[in-house]
Amino acid sequence: MSELRVRAEKLDAADELAAKRAGFVLDEVVYLDGNSLGALPANVPDRVADVVRRQWGALRIRSWEESGWWTAPERIGDRIAPLVGAAPGQVVVGDSTSVNVFKALVAAVRMAGEGRDEIVVDATTFPTDGYIAQSAARMTGCELRPVDPSEVPSVLGDRTAAVLLNHVDYRTGRLHDLPSLTAAVHAAGALVVWDLCHSAGALPVGLDEHEVDLAVGCTYKYLNGGPGSPAYLYVRADLQSRFDSPLPGWNSHVDPFGMRGDYEPATGALRGRVGTPDILSMLALEAALEVWDDVPIESVRAKSLALTDFFLECVEEYVPGGRVESLTPVAHEERGSQVALRCDDAAAVMERLIERGVVGDFRAPDVLRFGFTPLYVGFADVERAARTLGETLGG
Amino acid sequence: MSELRVRAEKLDAADELAAKRAGFVLDEVVYLDGNSLGALPANVPDRVADVVRRQWGALRIRSWEESGWWTAPERIGDRIAPLVGAAPGQVVVGDSTSVNVFKALVAAVRMAGEGRDEIVVDATTFPTDGYIAQSAARMTGCELRPVDPSEVPSVLGDRTAAVLLNHVDYRTGRLHDLPSLTAAVHAAGALVVWDLCHSAGALPVGLDEHEVDLAVGCTYKYLNGGPGSPAYLYVRADLQSRFDSPLPGWNSHVDPFGMRGDYEPATGALRGRVGTPDILSMLALEAALEVWDDVPIESVRAKSLALTDFFLECVEEYVPGGRVESLTPVAHEERGSQVALRCDDAAAVMERLIERGVVGDFRAPDVLRFGFTPLYVGFADVERAARTLGETLGG
Repeated sequence: MSELRVRAEKLDAADELAAKRAGFVLDEVVYLDGNSLGALPANVPDRVADVVRRQWGALRIRSWEESGWWTAPERIGDRIAPLVGAAPGQVVVGDSTSVNVFKALVAAVRMAGEGRDEIVVDATTFPTDGYIAQSAARMTGCELRPVDPSEVPSVLGDRTAAVLLNHVDYRTGRLHDLPSLTAAVHAAGALVVWDLCHSAGALPVGLDEHEVDLAVGCTYKYLNGGPGSPAYLYVRADLQSRFDSPLPGWNSHVDPFGMRGDYEPATGALRGRVGTPDILSMLALEAALEVWDDVPIESVRAKSLALTDFFLECVEEYVPGGRVESLTPVAHEERGSQVALRCDDAAAVMERLIERGVVGDFRAPDVLRFGFTPLYVGFADVERAARTLGETLGG
Repeated sequence: MSELRVRAEKLDAADELAAKRAGFVLDEVVYLDGNSLGALPANVPDRVADVVRRQWGALRIRSWEESGWWTAPERIGDRIAPLVGAAPGQVVVGDSTSVNVFKALVAAVRMAGEGRDEIVVDATTFPTDGYIAQSAARMTGCELRPVDPSEVPSVLGDRTAAVLLNHVDYRTGRLHDLPSLTAAVHAAGALVVWDLCHSAGALPVGLDEHEVDLAVGCTYKYLNGGPGSPAYLYVRADLQSRFDSPLPGWNSHVDPFGMRGDYEPATGALRGRVGTPDILSMLALEAALEVWDDVPIESVRAKSLALTDFFLECVEEYVPGGRVESLTPVAHEERGSQVALRCDDAAAVMERLIERGVVGDFRAPDVLRFGFTPLYVGFADVERAARTLGETLGG
């Protein structure tokens, strides 16, 4: 057995999160696409069946109260909160990430002072954030200024109303410096909105600690909520009374069943609610989050870095020189939980990898993307993935 | 047996939709709350289990293509289309009704001519529509003008950009005249947005026939999609190229996986998409819609009117005079598929009704609301509901 395989075995034997793998439905495939769609948590199918058959089928309308449907958005928000370093009462679940980016950005501009008419956005962001930021700018009379995240501090000024940033770049896996960027935005008198899609559940975020203003994220990647499961919105407690939503649906009303003609927003995070919550998906997510009950996010981060370190080492060993180039930073403080490899024929290479039982994904034009979910990916998986990549590339 | 019970038996025996009841999970309760949450279609639990266990659990990310997840919003939209009188390619499923009202109203204002700066809204509408219309007005520089639906024709003018109307009033069950109101709005040079929450699946809508511009609706009432199942948006084919969404998420991009920085909208109804579709809820809805395959909406309408006629007749017979007053119009052309009875102690009365196995709902301050879903409510149910109401009120 090769030295790397022996190392992998030892690392797996010492892995304190190894037992968590049994909490997921997995097979012989090495699944490195949890940064796109998390694997199915083993407790979800029975929970969903109960929601459908008993809660909907038998209790029907009574479930809005008896099964806790009505309060699900804030209850599940409070389950996500500790994973992103937030005290209770600041996270609400619902809608898609795109819709939440819109709520957060428009609300941020409205909270910014008079005369601030510029929205700064990470130009390397996942496209939807840029498109939605463009719309938010247009609808609030702002100008949109897309810049490289490294340039953010230098473009901030009196005109800056809000800054939308990604915690981890979806393409390269680069982790941006949330504490220092947040401080820079605040020093300029503006508000920051962080998109946590590629960080929540993979590494500590520290929203409260770093006094982040607003944040959004999806729940179907490292949080394993299921395909298209609802996103979430964080509004820092002391900003909630000024959170002025562009989507003031009846679910965010202080008295939703009063059916009043005038809109009076609720207090707290549920001001971020809009319409009727999507119960099936939301309660599947609630079940999926139970796996986190006894998992410190710091352990997840430690294993994530060990996995990506080991992957890069195995790639170096197995893949012929010059065939791939890592786009993911080497420095731990700049790395999320994925490794992106530039590769000339990336689309075809990923197809062959998948045929051989190693599932990552391809991002145009030339990126092989491998996500490492510490709760269910082990070191033997990592070694096998790199070895298979090496074989595929003729190593 | 009373004459009304004999009549009910005969009506049930002659009911051509009676067999559809077996397609739903029902029990001994008379369920007259399908206008709030439709009953569980019998084929949904197994379908959802397959989506969770096989499509998500085993195929994982491959399901976006192999299980048709990616195209679900427009495919399911095309299943809803015939129920609202729309040719294929004009309906897309996703987000909540509130979010779709926002998309539709903002897009309508943008399509209206220069100088049109007024949004007219049904003042008796379900509150969320009014709140969202207020936000749409604020964000497009329009004035909001809430008026009684009967006054709509008289307030239309050169300033009117868009009009948001409910097809059926959620409280009284009044059916508004979609053809004539649509024609009046068009005659004034404005666009109309219809909210079909309380009509789709209960009566013919005729969107194409009446040249409606935009429409939205939920899917958890007469369409039985499940709690909080995704809503839909209709954009008339010839307006689609001008549909300028305020929520241009990556799912509405012409090349979503090109991950391009510039936004170029897709063609067709999918321009109304925003973020990643909520697959569990969406595919539950798709299964729920199969019951409609061989049901002409005209038969549903005929039975619906027969049910509400019979209910009003039974109430007249069983309920002591003066205890309730119907808010629902007597004329068929003004009636949806529910009956609303004003009753002094409505909240307490509804509680007692539910204890006795008749489930309707209460709407503040004094309304008993009974919804009649022709696919699974029969005439014996109707007679029993009215009889129980009579007993509850001391008849």
